[in-house]
Amino acid sequence: MCHGVIHRLLPGATIIDTTHAVEPYNVLQAAVILADATPYLPIGVHVAIVDPGVGTDRRAVAIACENENVYVGPDNGVLMLAANRDIVVSAFELPVPKEAGLGPTFAGRDVFAPVAARLATGVPPRRLGRSLEASTLAKLSVPVPTAEAGGLRVVVLSSDSFGTLQLGCTRNELLAIGTSERVQVSTAHGQGAATIARTFADVGCGELLVYEDSFQHLAVAVREGSAAALLGASAGDIVSLDPL
Amino acid sequence: MCHGVIHRLLPGATIIDTTHAVEPYNVLQAAVILADATPYLPIGVHVAIVDPGVGTDRRAVAIACENENVYVGPDNGVLMLAANRDIVVSAFELPVPKEAGLGPTFAGRDVFAPVAARLATGVPPRRLGRSLEASTLAKLSVPVPTAEAGGLRVVVLSSDSFGTLQLGCTRNELLAIGTSERVQVSTAHGQGAATIARTFADVGCGELLVYEDSFQHLAVAVREGSAAALLGASAGDIVSLDPL
Amino acid sequence: MCHGVIHRLLPGATIIDTTHAVEPYNVLQAAVILADATPYLPIGVHVAIVDPGVGTDRRAVAIACENENVYVGPDNGVLMLAANRDIVVSAFELPVPKEAGLGPTFAGRDVFAPVAARLATGVPPRRLGRSLEASTLAKLSVPVPTAEAGGLRVVVLSSDSFGTLQLGCTRNELLAIGTSERVQVSTAHGQGAATIARTFADVGCGELLVYEDSFQHLAVAVREGSAAALLGASAGDIVSLDPL
Repeated sequence: MCHGVIHRLLPGATIIDTTHAVEPYNVLQAAVILADATPYLPIGVHVAIVDPGVGTDRRAVAIACENENVYVGPDNGVLMLAANRDIVVSAFELPVPKEAGLGPTFAGRDVFAPVAARLATGVPPRRLGRSLEASTLAKLSVPVPTAEAGGLRVVVLSSDSFGTLQLGCTRNELLAIGTSERVQVSTAHGQGAATIARTFADVGCGELLVYEDSFQHLAVAVREGSAAALLGASAGDIVSLDPL
Repeated sequence: MCHGVIHRLLPGATIIDTTHAVEPYNVLQAAVILADATPYLPIGVHVAIVDPGVGTDRRAVAIACENENVYVGPDNGVLMLAANRDIVVSAFELPVPKEAGLGPTFAGRDVFAPVAARLATGVPPRRLGRSLEASTLAKLSVPVPTAEAGGLRVVVLSSDSFGTLQLGCTRNELLAIGTSERVQVSTAHGQGAATIARTFADVGCGELLVYEDSFQHLAVAVREGSAAALLGASAGDIVSLDPL
Repeated sequence: MCHGVIHRLLPGATIIDTTHAVEPYNVLQAAVILADATPYLPIGVHVAIVDPGVGTDRRAVAIACENENVYVGPDNGVLMLAANRDIVVSAFELPVPKEAGLGPTFAGRDVFAPVAARLATGVPPRRLGRSLEASTLAKLSVPVPTAEAGGLRVVVLSSDSFGTLQLGCTRNELLAIGTSERVQVSTAHGQGAATIARTFADVGCGELLVYEDSFQHLAVAVREGSAAALLGASAGDIVSLDPL
């Protein structure tokens, strides 16, 4: 329906659906995907809507960046990982319509899509909202690994349709604990020995691997299987990585 | 594949996928979504295919409306909630190809997409089918609430990916039974006390709310949870709403 | 993300997502869908990525056909059912970038989408890769029915979101064993008597049917139900079809 709203205001608009696979309410996952995806997308207007606070007094914002990307969405942190990488130059609070039936539960249709369409037609952001201080924009704290008993405790950022777990950790952080070829991976619900690999086919079918994913996050997968199922893990859970 | 068929006949066509999330065989849900979505879409050709009778002698139709919207699909009621809101001016029965391999199980590809593409290129509907009497078009009866013992019995129209239940009932119909802040929600498989709220964040996480959704239907949700799971309910089920 | 990469190289490109419903790692299903879908799509560049060997030394290829379709993807057989129908005229091995972070697990973004965009802008395939001998391209063996005790043993090619099973068998192959109206359908986990029908509504709700699907494959379905659930079957399983 957001596509429809945009095409009514800007017929023939080019619209790219970056993903519809964000887990419900996982603002951090959406923020990470947006930041990771934007370098591969054309410069343009980027709308991100994972918005558990829709209809409350959380602000609706547009954030203009040095490279001419503009980010549009709720001010709950979903935009700022991406926007900060692009260097924020100005930010605006968007008006939220108060008419009956508008806005309280579908801001994508009633607030963000119309603003995105107008920005894409060339209307400058300052014409669409009231200037606000960029330092007041909500930011998420991105989990970092913590060292414990020679190993690492890291957070699962997300789980995809293959059951691959993306971790809040880099390959270098893993290597720094003295691992080289194998690592023990444990959660509250399961565990296994994983090979530190470059790609899936470096291990046998059904075997665990830990690898650097295509966005330079560390990830845990089972080749042609599901690490989420094997480890009983999902977004927000803690995974322990211990040298073997 | 329908997109491909359209682009072969009309290269560069603008195609909007309104939804792919209709429950299998739920013609009423599709009819409600189509009627609710169309006001937010550009004027154009609207194809709706939830078609359990594909390959039978149910008619394939195109329905032209006063505002120049044209609806294309099976004559099973899926089109008429939307078409009637736009005021029907003429209707046509579409020919169904009889060649081997065409039509019996994929009318979207073989009948509806080609017609939609031709209409979008400007061919008038009367050139594509035989005129029929609009009064003979199939209509669905949309469930309305029934009063019982001071409460309401309403039908679940659909359940979405968040487990939110859309009801065949309006906010005013609920308020008319004397509720104001809380209402008891019951099905054959579960029940709970719900807050009558404006948006999700008006209740605590995991709590039930009843609210007017963004299409002016009454809906039942669990904040950051699933009302469908809590109440054991799906499309077609009866929900009781009783004053607390 | 692949859409983004393409639009950066070819702004306003027409991109059709043929399907995102291929089962994980089911290269044969993807190959069959690609071959079945292409005749309904515009002539163009067709990218298919079901790629369990991503990051290994399996080749990345572009295959040019007589009708000017070009197929792009991994050289694991996913392209060749389609390409052979269009008659292969030349084939090229694509360079795989070796920089850190590129390629090992997301060749769609890093190899195939950029090549597809360049081909779509008119760059000839020979400019994008090193010529290779078409006879060396990987081919899949497509399962064919085997006769046994008066019946047929056939392979399930795929199962769709309705639970319909597509079989490696044609209607004529079924009729050749002497069936006409009914056939016994059995797997290791379930069985039932099916009507040989033209379309779903030829049987009652909940009943099994065997029919020729819209791509001339034999298929097994339950009207408004799931044959996959009833028969406990999924891609790669063997189904027995015996005369009744």
